Amino acid sequence: MNDMIRVTVWNEYHHEKTEKEVAAIYPDGIHQTIAGFLAKEDDFSIRTATLDEPEHGLCQEVLDQTDVLIWWGHVKHEQVSDQVVERVCSRVQKGMGLNVLHSGHMSKVFRKLMGTSCTLRWHEVAEKERVWVINPQHPIARGLPPYFEIHHEEMYGERFDIPAPDELVLISWFQTGEVFRSGCCFTRGYGRIFYFQPGHETHPIYHHPQVQQVITNALRWAAPIFEGSPVINGDWVAPLETL
Amino acid sequence: MNDMIRVTVWNEYHHEKTEKEVAAIYPDGIHQTIAGFLAKEDDFSIRTATLDEPEHGLCQEVLDQTDVLIWWGHVKHEQVSDQVVERVCSRVQKGMGLNVLHSGHMSKVFRKLMGTSCTLRWHEVAEKERVWVINPQHPIARGLPPYFEIHHEEMYGERFDIPAPDELVLISWFQTGEVFRSGCCFTRGYGRIFYFQPGHETHPIYHHPQVQQVITNALRWAAPIFEGSPVINGDWVAPLETL
Amino acid sequence: MNDMIRVTVWNEYHHEKTEKEVAAIYPDGIHQTIAGFLAKEDDFSIRTATLDEPEHGLCQEVLDQTDVLIWWGHVKHEQVSDQVVERVCSRVQKGMGLNVLHSGHMSKVFRKLMGTSCTLRWHEVAEKERVWVINPQHPIARGLPPYFEIHHEEMYGERFDIPAPDELVLISWFQTGEVFRSGCCFTRGYGRIFYFQPGHETHPIYHHPQVQQVITNALRWAAPIFEGSPVINGDWVAPLETL
Amino acid sequence: MNDMIRVTVWNEYHHEKTEKEVAAIYPDGIHQTIAGFLAKEDDFSIRTATLDEPEHGLCQEVLDQTDVLIWWGHVKHEQVSDQVVERVCSRVQKGMGLNVLHSGHMSKVFRKLMGTSCTLRWHEVAEKERVWVINPQHPIARGLPPYFEIHHEEMYGERFDIPAPDELVLISWFQTGEVFRSGCCFTRGYGRIFYFQPGHETHPIYHHPQVQQVITNALRWAAPIFEGSPVINGDWVAPLETL
Repeated sequence: MNDMIRVTVWNEYHHEKTEKEVAAIYPDGIHQTIAGFLAKEDDFSIRTATLDEPEHGLCQEVLDQTDVLIWWGHVKHEQVSDQVVERVCSRVQKGMGLNVLHSGHMSKVFRKLMGTSCTLRWHEVAEKERVWVINPQHPIARGLPPYFEIHHEEMYGERFDIPAPDELVLISWFQTGEVFRSGCCFTRGYGRIFYFQPGHETHPIYHHPQVQQVITNALRWAAPIFEGSPVINGDWVAPLETL
Repeated sequence: MNDMIRVTVWNEYHHEKTEKEVAAIYPDGIHQTIAGFLAKEDDFSIRTATLDEPEHGLCQEVLDQTDVLIWWGHVKHEQVSDQVVERVCSRVQKGMGLNVLHSGHMSKVFRKLMGTSCTLRWHEVAEKERVWVINPQHPIARGLPPYFEIHHEEMYGERFDIPAPDELVLISWFQTGEVFRSGCCFTRGYGRIFYFQPGHETHPIYHHPQVQQVITNALRWAAPIFEGSPVINGDWVAPLETL
Repeated sequence: MNDMIRVTVWNEYHHEKTEKEVAAIYPDGIHQTIAGFLAKEDDFSIRTATLDEPEHGLCQEVLDQTDVLIWWGHVKHEQVSDQVVERVCSRVQKGMGLNVLHSGHMSKVFRKLMGTSCTLRWHEVAEKERVWVINPQHPIARGLPPYFEIHHEEMYGERFDIPAPDELVLISWFQTGEVFRSGCCFTRGYGRIFYFQPGHETHPIYHHPQVQQVITNALRWAAPIFEGSPVINGDWVAPLETL
Repeated sequence: MNDMIRVTVWNEYHHEKTEKEVAAIYPDGIHQTIAGFLAKEDDFSIRTATLDEPEHGLCQEVLDQTDVLIWWGHVKHEQVSDQVVERVCSRVQKGMGLNVLHSGHMSKVFRKLMGTSCTLRWHEVAEKERVWVINPQHPIARGLPPYFEIHHEEMYGERFDIPAPDELVLISWFQTGEVFRSGCCFTRGYGRIFYFQPGHETHPIYHHPQVQQVITNALRWAAPIFEGSPVINGDWVAPLETL
């Protein structure tokens, strides 16, 4: 029981309530679809949180009980309060894992942790994406074939304005001529961060078995190894006279 | 002339005005000492800026005419206005180089670009530091011996809470039992960032020939390769029909 | 049962048979001491192999049944046959993990996989080493304190002539003024490689609890994620007409 | 004069002599075409060498006078003598730069320095390649647009079995659905290595202005910063009593 990874799936939960096309794919919201396939695994205990809840569902207590946070947001980034952003980033720096999905690249949380604009090239023509595994020996690639295809996806293309990832696991090919670093690992403080590009709301991408596999793997990879406060200034580890 | 690297040396310029011990080492301020040894090089055009100047000497025009910014700050980090911090970070992301010295690790600018706390272990007993070159084939190591010594320095020790550097050039040994990643390269947006640890104000460290060599090398390394705006969203690079 | 990590501990097994001082510390050989502390873990199935066995104990069948190989060698590197070296390297490239200990840095296997000389600075005065954890959020650092001490160790110092590690987990401080990247992660082909510096034969280093912890962690980290042959030339993945 | 970068362009020089199609594009050999466009730069002094010359044109004296070596080979890798391979690798480890082009990925030299199989996916249908710059602030990207196109190229696709590059500068898109890390930086010993994928002999790729720009930039990047012997074992840097 104490080995369970406590996952919180966060979603801005807007398109599903306002667009029939999206609601048809995710009737209870993207967060519930993600929570649904994660629930098939034995080692996750799962809760969800959304923008409209008090404190966006991310009060300190919830975060303190979260090992890995999944983040999906798109058009409501600016409505996430700075206080919650600060709380989430601080919790990551102290050890919580973070999996940022698709348009979450422009979330305040991700941009603050990266220190860059996180912009990219994009267009939306429902084209084919092929996701290539370039690091098959990485835990996030466990069980994946050499590549998998998503038949209709929004294009995200380079240059993706992120710091060089610590590890690059996936690179995507798009039919219209672009490439994208679609699976990127980072650490910030004691927290492990994975950015994963697939997931446009108008396509059934979180129903895709390999997409589900990547998210599942990434949660296990991002689960905390060490938790603590980074501030250790002034700690006299080794007085001069002891040598 | 157009190949000159335009350098701005920024200093909070406080200790030199309030502490005799520091004034004896840097009578005109740390910034003037740094500007002085840089002036011996043919390829730098140099200006300085300090905290007490209007906009801390870093108005948009000055930054736009700066290729690489050197940053020294210590006890006045919180007095640097958020507007200037934002302006500096934005300019780095668009291509300006940044060399952060010593206690600048806790500056608002460096922390914002790193996305971490940037804390470290420290104490001050005027101990010996030995700076080891672990990447002698890096441009920032040009002309350095296998190691150099600083006879009296404040100790900065691991764990230094930074993202994994893109390149690690220097590791320091301290007499009291600590190690430190003392020369670290990063990129953020189009800007190249070098953090260099030596430089406590109560020791004549910026008069040290190898310390001067590292700073000189780092300016050349950090000079912009590409300058531009990272925002390219919505740019239709390759319409589907052209394939 | 199928989740057991199959470990083979390889030792050149020379000093223990010829030097009383070493035999006193490792009466049955370094390999047996390592196998002994690993046997306390539930998830390892362990065998040993030594230089004097036929094919050095590393026939194809043994390697095929090995998930992670530990390598300790010192003065007999040149007596390891090129055929076995080729077999080990090939198995690593196909997914087997490899943990190289101490003087194994000069083994034919490690040098072949690194592509560099793997030389370093060294001397032997039984000095103090302090091993600092600079990447506490890495699986190999699990359960470690901020640093641990080895009271008497041979000094290994920079510059260590290796490629830049994929991840740097540990940096060591030595009493005589040197630093060393003492815990380094690499991948080659599908295999994960960890180099760990402590372990001179004249000191009881493999009896040290934190040293044992690192080796235990490293085995779990290096266990194969993916196994296969790298050769896929000429495979027509996507005929032009299918787009 | 002493700032000239001494370049040696090596070519196996086989296809140009046996295939009319190739000879039409490179009448004097790929090496002469490359030497030709490099000769327009002020800071290169250029010589060429080919497989059929004594010692393949790479005697010790030539290598000692070479700052950066360009390597193009395809079907004659096995005819390069092990002695010359050893000599080239040793010279790289001591500081010479190396730019490996296209099918040179399977050369003995590159494979020995990488420690991996260096295999990849490939097919030849004269398809379109689009080379994306993902690291525009890197010296090798100087002067490049966001991407450039090669209208007909052999496809090289992932997974490319190389160690994780120190820096990834270019990623290519291929019309048939593949991606490739087409511009990769490594260091081995004191030598800097750049692998650059374009260059199939049946297409006029080394006449392409951006391809020429990359090669030109890469020579400047790979020019030696430090030259020396990596062997420093047993050097007593800091006797215990001096502390």
